[in-house]
Amino acid sequence: MTVQGGDPRIVQLTHRPGVIDLGWGHPDPALLPAAGLREAAGAALDRLGPDALAYGAVRGPAPLRDWLGVRIARTEGRAPAPGEILITGGISHALDQLCTLLARPGDVALVESPTYHLAVRILREHPLDLVPVPADDGGLRVDALAATVATLRRAGRAPRLLYTVPTFHNPTGVSLDPARRRALVELAAAEGLTVIEDDAYRELAYDGPAPPSLWSLAPPGAVVRLGSFSKAVAPGLRLGWLTAGAATVARLADGGLLDSGGGVNHFTACAVAAFCGAGQFEEQVADLRAAYRARRDALVGALREHLPADCRWRAPAGGFFVWARLPDGLDAAALLPRAVEGGVAYLPGARCHLDGGPAETLRLAFGLYPPEALAEAARRLGAVVRAAG
Amino acid sequence: MTVQGGDPRIVQLTHRPGVIDLGWGHPDPALLPAAGLREAAGAALDRLGPDALAYGAVRGPAPLRDWLGVRIARTEGRAPAPGEILITGGISHALDQLCTLLARPGDVALVESPTYHLAVRILREHPLDLVPVPADDGGLRVDALAATVATLRRAGRAPRLLYTVPTFHNPTGVSLDPARRRALVELAAAEGLTVIEDDAYRELAYDGPAPPSLWSLAPPGAVVRLGSFSKAVAPGLRLGWLTAGAATVARLADGGLLDSGGGVNHFTACAVAAFCGAGQFEEQVADLRAAYRARRDALVGALREHLPADCRWRAPAGGFFVWARLPDGLDAAALLPRAVEGGVAYLPGARCHLDGGPAETLRLAFGLYPPEALAEAARRLGAVVRAAG
Repeated sequence: MTVQGGDPRIVQLTHRPGVIDLGWGHPDPALLPAAGLREAAGAALDRLGPDALAYGAVRGPAPLRDWLGVRIARTEGRAPAPGEILITGGISHALDQLCTLLARPGDVALVESPTYHLAVRILREHPLDLVPVPADDGGLRVDALAATVATLRRAGRAPRLLYTVPTFHNPTGVSLDPARRRALVELAAAEGLTVIEDDAYRELAYDGPAPPSLWSLAPPGAVVRLGSFSKAVAPGLRLGWLTAGAATVARLADGGLLDSGGGVNHFTACAVAAFCGAGQFEEQVADLRAAYRARRDALVGALREHLPADCRWRAPAGGFFVWARLPDGLDAAALLPRAVEGGVAYLPGARCHLDGGPAETLRLAFGLYPPEALAEAARRLGAVVRAAG
Repeated sequence: MTVQGGDPRIVQLTHRPGVIDLGWGHPDPALLPAAGLREAAGAALDRLGPDALAYGAVRGPAPLRDWLGVRIARTEGRAPAPGEILITGGISHALDQLCTLLARPGDVALVESPTYHLAVRILREHPLDLVPVPADDGGLRVDALAATVATLRRAGRAPRLLYTVPTFHNPTGVSLDPARRRALVELAAAEGLTVIEDDAYRELAYDGPAPPSLWSLAPPGAVVRLGSFSKAVAPGLRLGWLTAGAATVARLADGGLLDSGGGVNHFTACAVAAFCGAGQFEEQVADLRAAYRARRDALVGALREHLPADCRWRAPAGGFFVWARLPDGLDAAALLPRAVEGGVAYLPGARCHLDGGPAETLRLAFGLYPPEALAEAARRLGAVVRAAG
């Protein structure tokens, strides 16, 4: 039950023999468009020649920004102005740059809890002072956010940033409730809080269109929305984009890194521009939606069949993750070695909280394996949980 | 007298009609190996399939690290251990990450003066507290460095980093004297100062091999040497590498950015591994040395012919830059608008000092234009200087 490819000298993923590892939030290598990108890289060099290899325009090659602008206008109902879009080296890289250029060391950054655990590391390294805000089945609790901001202000601290994954959340799969989206962007605008919207999973929508981005709802300047080609095309490209207020985009474009090196990942950006311009992005996304929808359904169906009745989980409407809760008294981190012995692995949910969190939660990623492996993983997990309960 | 390519919607470079602009430290687009990289990108995808597109190994694909290790051992006489090498997103990106992960905000970073002006911006953004150290015709003055370190220590401040370009310096073209190289690494090791060696120009050596890198001379851990494919292959790749102590490499490899996104620019790194593995790197570097040597000679010869006798400049043994000094009383920044009217431009040298510097210095970059354009640029510059003198 291993996956295609995966030479550990080349890729990040490592396999443990006999273990179906739902801890990795990675796409299935078999779904990556190698042939299409091969063609696109060649087309970019044929068409642009040395322009694809010189220092790139600091905001990214215009054909890619233009294509994104048209697509965003069509799918989100709001067109970014030319000064409101920037090509990035993926969401993690963009987040790193935002921490350097929009915040000062020691500034308060609010993060929903649970949240994407590796983003927390980037925020902490700058170093920012992280303050958690709770979430529930409707996503980030905007009432709790307002209370946290008020408490911080009374203590003389103005929070600078909020990092959030409002759509197909990592790790919970939840999308922020529409009313809360509006309340959040209003609160952010009123408080001068910059919302960093990690929008990695937008294209992976399985039950109809994704909810509107915070960026599309917000007054200019309140939200920096980070998009990515990692999930919709291929993570090894290390390419993404952002939409934000013109002043924020200018701050990034005028920073030392882009001034010195030109646009981020210029050659790759030119190749992806050719890929998208040839209509391959839409085809790829349609294929991925169908494939991952089937995987979600396989995993959720098998969890229903195999997990004890006192386990809880949610079927997400998009993204890569099922967030599950073991019966009270079970500790997902403590159980993990036994799960691995039983041939299945996951991410303990406590890792997604700033300072630990409910020990009985876990994250199951369904992107990497085909449906039959996911069903087998659920069967194995059920056996491990029953044996421990 | 313009250059091939250069659509400003795609690339960073912009042209002013009629101006030969020696301000840009860019390679000539006509010298970029578009055909070779086209072939290499295809070969990487054919050979590695989805492994070239998945999240990459955090230290970079092993074939590229292995190739670099062998080449560095052969050309520098010191082989990096497997744990002492990391693929980066180019020198600027590596510098940015080092500032985040090796230093704390407010730490002192020493920089030679003059220095690469855009590196200064990256260092300042983190924010580090920059302290200049003077240089002369032998490069960084290590005696002055020792005195500066001592002064800082007496004030209770331990400098954390030294940023230096010891080989074919930007902007001066000077290479650090061999005796000073040894003294520098000894001082750094004794003082616990991490030297960041910007080694961008090593391959562009025109009068015999480049001097040994600081890294190759230093005790383990004292030097982080930043290498790049920007000058030797193509800047739009945004790809480089570093050699450093194993603990430093581990700090970078274990940081949030690489943990979250996998190896930097993975797809491009796989393409460059194929390019290098096919022997194209050596061919490309041989071609570049011949081409740029001819350009240096053309520019220096024409400066000798056309500049007034009281101008001074040096013929560099490698790299991209001639550092020139106008007659006393002339201000290179003030003269620039008249130079542009006269059809030539340059980088005023004061920009390469932390807080201004000798007003009569200027940097002439000879990478972008063919010899005949460089000769014409020198003629125009001579006319402008004579008219102003």
